Amino acid sequence: MLIPRALCGMARSNKKRTAGFGGSPGKRLARIVVKFGGTSVATVERIRQSARHVKREVEAGNEVCVVVSAMSGKTNELVGWVNEASAFHDAREYDAVVASGEQVTAGLMAIVLSEMGIQSRSFAGWQVPIKTDDAHGAARIVDIDGTELDKRMKDGWVPVITGFQGISPHNRITTLGRGGSDTSAVAVAAAVNADRCDIYTDVDGVYTTDPRIVPKAQRLSKISFEEMLEMASLGAKVLMIRSVEMAMAHKVRLLVRSSFDDPDAPQLAPDGTPGVPGTLVCDEDEIMEKQIVSGVTLAKAEAKITLRDVKDNPGVAAAIFGALADEGIIVDMIVQNIADDGATTDITFTVPDSEYDKAIKTLQAAGTDKRIEYARISGSKGGAKISVVGVGMRSHAGVASSMFKALADKGINIQLITTSEIKTSVLIDEQYAELAVRALHTYYGLDRKDA
Amino acid sequence: MLIPRALCGMARSNKKRTAGFGGSPGKRLARIVVKFGGTSVATVERIRQSARHVKREVEAGNEVCVVVSAMSGKTNELVGWVNEASAFHDAREYDAVVASGEQVTAGLMAIVLSEMGIQSRSFAGWQVPIKTDDAHGAARIVDIDGTELDKRMKDGWVPVITGFQGISPHNRITTLGRGGSDTSAVAVAAAVNADRCDIYTDVDGVYTTDPRIVPKAQRLSKISFEEMLEMASLGAKVLMIRSVEMAMAHKVRLLVRSSFDDPDAPQLAPDGTPGVPGTLVCDEDEIMEKQIVSGVTLAKAEAKITLRDVKDNPGVAAAIFGALADEGIIVDMIVQNIADDGATTDITFTVPDSEYDKAIKTLQAAGTDKRIEYARISGSKGGAKISVVGVGMRSHAGVASSMFKALADKGINIQLITTSEIKTSVLIDEQYAELAVRALHTYYGLDRKDA
Repeated sequence: MLIPRALCGMARSNKKRTAGFGGSPGKRLARIVVKFGGTSVATVERIRQSARHVKREVEAGNEVCVVVSAMSGKTNELVGWVNEASAFHDAREYDAVVASGEQVTAGLMAIVLSEMGIQSRSFAGWQVPIKTDDAHGAARIVDIDGTELDKRMKDGWVPVITGFQGISPHNRITTLGRGGSDTSAVAVAAAVNADRCDIYTDVDGVYTTDPRIVPKAQRLSKISFEEMLEMASLGAKVLMIRSVEMAMAHKVRLLVRSSFDDPDAPQLAPDGTPGVPGTLVCDEDEIMEKQIVSGVTLAKAEAKITLRDVKDNPGVAAAIFGALADEGIIVDMIVQNIADDGATTDITFTVPDSEYDKAIKTLQAAGTDKRIEYARISGSKGGAKISVVGVGMRSHAGVASSMFKALADKGINIQLITTSEIKTSVLIDEQYAELAVRALHTYYGLDRKDA
Repeated sequence: MLIPRALCGMARSNKKRTAGFGGSPGKRLARIVVKFGGTSVATVERIRQSARHVKREVEAGNEVCVVVSAMSGKTNELVGWVNEASAFHDAREYDAVVASGEQVTAGLMAIVLSEMGIQSRSFAGWQVPIKTDDAHGAARIVDIDGTELDKRMKDGWVPVITGFQGISPHNRITTLGRGGSDTSAVAVAAAVNADRCDIYTDVDGVYTTDPRIVPKAQRLSKISFEEMLEMASLGAKVLMIRSVEMAMAHKVRLLVRSSFDDPDAPQLAPDGTPGVPGTLVCDEDEIMEKQIVSGVTLAKAEAKITLRDVKDNPGVAAAIFGALADEGIIVDMIVQNIADDGATTDITFTVPDSEYDKAIKTLQAAGTDKRIEYARISGSKGGAKISVVGVGMRSHAGVASSMFKALADKGINIQLITTSEIKTSVLIDEQYAELAVRALHTYYGLDRKDA
């Protein structure tokens, strides 16, 4: 996990300024970074609707800084032109073209806010500046100078910043890669010591599981950074992993909420009771009643590959997964059994179904020229990874075994198991995936009462 | 006429480097700034076609720098969003939004050139930097640092610069106003001491008159800066006046030509004989055979207003035209007759038909409260201004009188006459406009021989 070093010094505990969200009955000044995704700024009318959320926060006495994505569809249009221009384009030019999308939204948002009587101005990434490395197309934020933003906010202005982009050491525009606007927002929040970073999107929060599979899925009012990380990396596409990592490192509290809500409807209750719009992603300490399991996630189309009787030398795992990494194959679950004879071992891992054939070929080639010594290779596509996630697992023994029992009760066979501190994952046959998710969701008491 | 002071020092005589265009039989290195308008970069396919013109120039051994407009229609789309966001928008935000259009084209052009094997990179106005004043939406270029561009070109690179924009003293993006890309190109040409600035557009040059009115109109192979200025300001919309003014001040030779030509067809003959694509706008000295009249122009919908018996005090003209300027009314022709009695005078002038009512009201109000003292006001809409333009007028007496005679022969009554050193204009009834243009075009020997 890479977190910009330069930002680390700027982070401070959010404990000093939890005002304005949860726990504090009186209304006190809070500083909020507000981020709007593509669907929230898809048209000028949508920008106006999103701006009303900003206005509400400003009128409540908060200092607000806005980060925007490109209008929905615009980034794809720009990327399409770049690809039409050349399949082998310079990443720096790609960035120059694609970064124009957020520039448009930032200007329009500043105009709309100004018309609502809110002092506002746009900042392109290079104007802040948001300094990045020069990994064009997937740049990392190195430093943000929050001085101007801080001054503006203190003077009652609402800065509007282009998400997804910054400026390289060579004075070229960089982009952070898809979903980078969330990361921009969190980094800006850290740089200006914000009390909260509100991610406005087209869903109203983080759910216990995918509501399309389990209609009884519930929106979580709070979730810890660690849980969110496990949820995000397991397929809950609400927030980008990078932005959650960065938020955790800098203790930036994230609120995931919908920009399609009525901006003028009653907002957060001071005590964070159910009914609050959105899900707060925060430090574990802030969550009073910890659920043992907070969510159940599902990732399909996972292929399983097993290497039998691998010669158990030091560095053998590095040789296997290095060979796969060289081919750009991303490996997910990894299980290594202790060898019976102390000389050989069995190693099983999963890759996306689409990478299965390539992975098999890569390992066969490595076996042929003795880079990796093993007896047999086998595997199959069509697996599904089901995970249960929850910080409560730390203090509750037996979550894993109860999970296995719940699946066994439904006659579902477990092919592979991996565990982390707050997560237990199993690989099962894809055809039982939805059945398994529903069973576990009910088993851990996550079903909505009213459903 | 305002020309950026800071640029003046950078201009040098083009006499030193006329190589590569006209007169010089051997092929020698030239430095060319090439500008593509919106229709020349309307799609990625059009960008590719335009890039082939650049490639041809590079392969001929020239140093080339490219300036681009936004893709045709894109600026209107962006302006539309800004207006939808707010009718009373901040001009700085307007600029931030609208300037994104050229950023896209510059990146795409750099990608396409690179794919053709030409080293290329894009520069946004702020990256060059192109420094402007802070008159957002209509900024003026104050200074261009040509160091980086110069170095790049010497190293065999083709820089691609966003036209139409720059950076203000406050680090905000500015735009130069509509048509500003021509001005950008000329300013860049001056900054890098280019031998020529090629304006690629959707017409193939400057014509003796509007070919839609006179099918026998001819393309001029050369025209002087002064003539082009008169032509531009009189309605020949090929080049923006500002860019011609700047080109004249810095002795930047302009070549107006079509990007729709086959880039690989045979190009300029070394002696500039007919058949050369495009029209060269250059110093009068470079034009060997000067026509007495180079062109005939037409502007319709001109309204005439006369103030009778104006009290002839010093400052009275300033009072009249100051009052109109305060209302944003642009006055074109102005004629003042010598007063009979030495105490009063008659003043006649023209305004666009659309401003006629406003102008009358403004002057009536000024008369009522005695800011301007006159006896009567009268006027009418529906005039047409016909002008003949030519540097040859300087040395040929009688151009004006022969013009009046040519019109009289067709029974056309002249309402108003103004003259400058190289131009004679008359106001006539709009219904005779086309007849007058055709008659004068034939009279001055401008008709194509083969038509």
